Amino acid sequence: MKLTFDHSELLKSVNIAMKAVSSKTTMPILECILIDASASEIKFISNDMELGIETVVKGTILEKGRVAIDAKTFFEIVRRLPDNIVMMETNENLIVRITCEKSKFDIPGRSADDFPYLPVVDRKDSIRITQYSLRQIINQTIFSIAVNENNKLMTGELFEVENNNLKVVSLDGHRIAIRRIELGGECADRRVVIPGKALSEVSRILDGGLEDQVTVYFSDDHVIFEFDRTMILTRLIDGEYFNVAQMLSGDYQTKTVINKQDLLSCMNRASLLVKESDKMPVVMNITDDTIELSINTAMGSMDETISTVKDGKDMVIGFNPKFMIDALRVIEDEEISIYYMSPIAPCFIKDDNENYIYLILPVNISR
Amino acid sequence: MKLTFDHSELLKSVNIAMKAVSSKTTMPILECILIDASASEIKFISNDMELGIETVVKGTILEKGRVAIDAKTFFEIVRRLPDNIVMMETNENLIVRITCEKSKFDIPGRSADDFPYLPVVDRKDSIRITQYSLRQIINQTIFSIAVNENNKLMTGELFEVENNNLKVVSLDGHRIAIRRIELGGECADRRVVIPGKALSEVSRILDGGLEDQVTVYFSDDHVIFEFDRTMILTRLIDGEYFNVAQMLSGDYQTKTVINKQDLLSCMNRASLLVKESDKMPVVMNITDDTIELSINTAMGSMDETISTVKDGKDMVIGFNPKFMIDALRVIEDEEISIYYMSPIAPCFIKDDNENYIYLILPVNISR
Repeated sequence: MKLTFDHSELLKSVNIAMKAVSSKTTMPILECILIDASASEIKFISNDMELGIETVVKGTILEKGRVAIDAKTFFEIVRRLPDNIVMMETNENLIVRITCEKSKFDIPGRSADDFPYLPVVDRKDSIRITQYSLRQIINQTIFSIAVNENNKLMTGELFEVENNNLKVVSLDGHRIAIRRIELGGECADRRVVIPGKALSEVSRILDGGLEDQVTVYFSDDHVIFEFDRTMILTRLIDGEYFNVAQMLSGDYQTKTVINKQDLLSCMNRASLLVKESDKMPVVMNITDDTIELSINTAMGSMDETISTVKDGKDMVIGFNPKFMIDALRVIEDEEISIYYMSPIAPCFIKDDNENYIYLILPVNISR
Repeated sequence: MKLTFDHSELLKSVNIAMKAVSSKTTMPILECILIDASASEIKFISNDMELGIETVVKGTILEKGRVAIDAKTFFEIVRRLPDNIVMMETNENLIVRITCEKSKFDIPGRSADDFPYLPVVDRKDSIRITQYSLRQIINQTIFSIAVNENNKLMTGELFEVENNNLKVVSLDGHRIAIRRIELGGECADRRVVIPGKALSEVSRILDGGLEDQVTVYFSDDHVIFEFDRTMILTRLIDGEYFNVAQMLSGDYQTKTVINKQDLLSCMNRASLLVKESDKMPVVMNITDDTIELSINTAMGSMDETISTVKDGKDMVIGFNPKFMIDALRVIEDEEISIYYMSPIAPCFIKDDNENYIYLILPVNISR
């Protein structure tokens, strides 16, 4: 194998492929990137058995071939090379020689035959969405997936295509995040659960804007994100996702309209009095045109008043400030509406069109 | 006690005082900042028993008093307050109330009597230097102090005032860093060893430029850095510092003049093949107008040639690339001169005026 690259193209591609390299594995081959130049294109492939990435790299094939190379070493070398033409070639002992200007590295490679290729996936239905929107919709929901694996479905996000809308849902038992966007064109209805880890990586790799498209392909077991010259593949999570519709209610006893930044700043201040060990709630005392927020912990107490436009009954309700902060951070609206049913029922932060709904369970403060 | 501050002034001062707050201590009072408004000025004082900071804070004293407050909580609160007038007051139970706009915190304080005040230091000799120069001279030498405490003197830096020059020296047994600058005015000769930790904090707090001065006061046991409205005090390290002069030699067998960036980039690339567990050297093969640098480790090998102007014999010598990198990083010259005596004697990187000297011991590669 003998290839040449522009340094900047090479670095970009290694960076992408790195995202699906296992850091902790008992199989050393999974710590490698497969360089496949056996056909007419150069591909970098990585696979941690959950997430797979294949990216086509701009470069010239002087001699066809394939080799797997330790990803971390490869990345660190490429990162430090001067910005010039980089040559990679292998010898019969699978030593990979990387040359750039007067610099020359010899790194032991591994046989490409040992590398687990990505599964071939039947590309059935697909949707198209901008890179910007997909990144946004992931970041605006991913924080409320469950961290522990007790319930596998909670570690993923529901992607539901229905009536040419994409709805993304995540929940962890204490809160639900829902985002909806319209899709262009005709799309078949679909309901899949995608692992959160994969979505995090996808949002990290997607650096395009509103003009750059991603195609998302669904098969029965997999989902593929394809954009530019990169394909990210992940296995779906099996099982029937929670029936979220029945958890949502149109009713409310109290509605408050609040300046988002005021509430967020206040919750941020409150959260610093909360220690991991004693999870005290922020108590919201909602009266006619003000909400008094207070918290009282071993570290001290805080008391603050923010103004609101209220509709409905007065209410006293307690929340974990972290849950409020997570939701408020990703809402772009300046003014937000919060709907409360009772001090022991979830509240909803949502816009009029329900393009976003954040449901948060209160902390019982009547004890 | 009742005080008011502009938020930005308060935040700046808490930030400074934080630098001498103990993070790990068995004495909870050392985790506090002492707020002393018992006289005509407001002072924030912190003291981790090694380093002490006293900074005068712009603000208004409505009622005199003193209180100690948990530094981390105080800092986190102040950081999150809106940019407006902040009021602090204490009640008879030592509860500190912090108010800003509609936000109100109550934090338990501690008696100021428990706080260990900074020692009163006899200000004998002093030098004046710009904040920029002091920060530079620390950063250009601090990396070669010893990390472990086996030899206390090696954990500090020698500050030597002689003939109106300040010479700063650090060494760890494998290398020596020396920087010299001229001082304005007449200064008494002095030779003190200042703890490295204190100097790191000083360089972090000093944010002024070439127009901003620091006065450094020396006493028998302490050194004080005074600038703006802040004073940093630290105990000196006892003992006679190493006789560095006798380790320096004017002789050399080989001299190479090299482009600094070329050598630094090359050493950076070489270092990535070095693992903590196997410290392999970079071998420099110096011939007439080139240096071939090579390294060979379990991770792979590297080979690179850089051009040089050589004076003297050919030589093959090995170095720990980290030591080279540390020195090269802080040298501003584009071209550097390296002087070698033999493959088993230290090399020197120095400029013609000896404003800097970096001595590095080679790794014996003859084995």
